[in-house]
Amino acid sequence: MTIKLVVLYTRPDDPDAFDRLYFGTHLPLVKSIPGLQRAETSRFVAAGDGGEQTYHRVVELYFADQAALDAAYASDQGKATAASYQQIAPPGSRMLIAAIDD
Amino acid sequence: MTIKLVVLYTRPDDPDAFDRLYFGTHLPLVKSIPGLQRAETSRFVAAGDGGEQTYHRVVELYFADQAALDAAYASDQGKATAASYQQIAPPGSRMLIAAIDD
Repeated sequence: MTIKLVVLYTRPDDPDAFDRLYFGTHLPLVKSIPGLQRAETSRFVAAGDGGEQTYHRVVELYFADQAALDAAYASDQGKATAASYQQIAPPGSRMLIAAIDD
Repeated sequence: MTIKLVVLYTRPDDPDAFDRLYFGTHLPLVKSIPGLQRAETSRFVAAGDGGEQTYHRVVELYFADQAALDAAYASDQGKATAASYQQIAPPGSRMLIAAIDD
């Protein structure tokens, strides 16, 4: 069962500066993670439910299965990415693990 | 630019009963929406950041562009799906619109 890491970034003070940092510094680290099959990055443009636009971005990182994700977390590249995430993620950001339905 | 509707369902009282309703009743409505390119449904299995497992499911509905999403919202099938969403979504669930980076 394919597993994805779903990262929800809350709105930073300066979204464009965040994006420069994200694409310039963080995403290259993400892409170095062993076992990563695909990364899909998106920017929220509106709240479809009329509510608050809580999140700025959602990023999804796809892995073959839970074992591959565990190995990614344990790798040097995974640890470097996690450290970078701690630096760039605005307060309230979330990193959640989801199993994709067949 | 591909647009996706990102639906975050908070944890229902009975997740398995929710899933039966979701797949039995709601998803067929979703799949009837004109212009829908792809639907990816996933169930959260853990919080990768050690925080609370706020959300139960994330669903992503892909459309060619904003115009296709607007047409989907305006369609009878889109309206029926929105009405169903109002019935099944636990409080705090979110429906957000995101532009996928190239």
